[in-house]
Amino acid sequence: MFRYAIKIEYDGTNFHGWQKQNSLATVQGTINEALDKLDNSKNGVTGAGRTDAGVHALGQVAHLDTTKSWKISELQNALNYHLKPHPISVVRIAQTSIDFHARFSAVNRHYLFKILIRRAPLTLNKNRFWHVKRLLKIVQMKEAAAHLVGQHDFTTFRSSICQAKSPIKTIDKILIDKHSKEEESIVEIRIQARSFLHNQVRSIVGTLEKVGSGFWTPKYVAEAVKAKDRAKCGPVAPAHGLYLEKVLYDDLIF
Amino acid sequence: MFRYAIKIEYDGTNFHGWQKQNSLATVQGTINEALDKLDNSKNGVTGAGRTDAGVHALGQVAHLDTTKSWKISELQNALNYHLKPHPISVVRIAQTSIDFHARFSAVNRHYLFKILIRRAPLTLNKNRFWHVKRLLKIVQMKEAAAHLVGQHDFTTFRSSICQAKSPIKTIDKILIDKHSKEEESIVEIRIQARSFLHNQVRSIVGTLEKVGSGFWTPKYVAEAVKAKDRAKCGPVAPAHGLYLEKVLYDDLIF
Repeated sequence: MFRYAIKIEYDGTNFHGWQKQNSLATVQGTINEALDKLDNSKNGVTGAGRTDAGVHALGQVAHLDTTKSWKISELQNALNYHLKPHPISVVRIAQTSIDFHARFSAVNRHYLFKILIRRAPLTLNKNRFWHVKRLLKIVQMKEAAAHLVGQHDFTTFRSSICQAKSPIKTIDKILIDKHSKEEESIVEIRIQARSFLHNQVRSIVGTLEKVGSGFWTPKYVAEAVKAKDRAKCGPVAPAHGLYLEKVLYDDLIF
Repeated sequence: MFRYAIKIEYDGTNFHGWQKQNSLATVQGTINEALDKLDNSKNGVTGAGRTDAGVHALGQVAHLDTTKSWKISELQNALNYHLKPHPISVVRIAQTSIDFHARFSAVNRHYLFKILIRRAPLTLNKNRFWHVKRLLKIVQMKEAAAHLVGQHDFTTFRSSICQAKSPIKTIDKILIDKHSKEEESIVEIRIQARSFLHNQVRSIVGTLEKVGSGFWTPKYVAEAVKAKDRAKCGPVAPAHGLYLEKVLYDDLIF
């Protein structure tokens, strides 16, 4: 067996998430089908992050096994060829040791959430941004975000179907940028952690949006964390604004 | 009659261009249908630029007439409501004098052409960029572009079906920017002129790409202009990389 790591980009709009499901189009299932056309290892691909339906990736990482040794550029081209016409693309590839595991070896995951603020409906950016119509106060959002950085019990920001054993997670960084251009503004929220609870990023973004729009104070967020109560969370932000941007490993794999 | 100017954004992918055509989906035809639901002036909309099939707009400008006077934000919302679910959005609106003409009053048009350079197929940016696989030398492209700025006979860079009376046009500016990020680079080419010949921007971009990839020298472009010969032009760059970015008028209309 030979093991390869791939960096994958995808448009999640028409997929039922990353994880393979019978009779539903998923990113993992689609890559497995492409791989089966090239090799009969039947191990499939294992991803670093199991993104939900509608969530995109700029830098998902996965590993896969082959029975024969490939020249990496040829394996990349062959996978991309068989992935057509699906909006999934292998943007990088590397051979790894056989004990590399895309999910368990990952030491940090970076998610990016994109918000577009304007009155008019979206066209070119539809399904690429969360469309918000009211102005967001960035200073307040940053102040609220500071209460979430570090190690906390994130019960408030966790989906009821989350399967993680513990609700305790450590957020390393939350970066919030805003750039305005004529009749619109773009807000980009980047959240970095070793790992996340189910819906954690979208729950945090939905809460920060409530602060940005003046509905809640930054201090409310500190109280919401302490409450460990799902009811204190803002509405979960829509999947189509979310991107798995980067997955980091101890060794530089690419 | 009351006249309004609208600034329009659209995803041109599934339209047969701007201009109304019987039984084909066009941007103008679609806006006319929305307008007919609000008002019975039957004048329709008149656009500043007649973009081709697949070409996008970030800032197309058009004018339209109504029989009753509207509050502008209400007219904008009503148009956007009736434009749904089409990827066309009225991003700005203003009332103008009745002699304002979106096409004839325009004094400058800015087109943007976007190129994405990388090996892997596009996903999130499909139909938003021209996908080029070889590296482009920007210095040479800028040198070539300099030969196109100013007043010239653009016969070489004109579609055979172009209906303009004269092939002489004045290009005010060509700006070329490149930014690289991990495994990809984005090249943005902005071309500004009072008006353009049919396919002029895409012909120029197709020619500059040939220079950037080392196929032609910058000097070749100077000779191609002088030759006034369509055969000396590079291949016409694909429509889906092109955006009508801005239309300028003597008076600030918005």
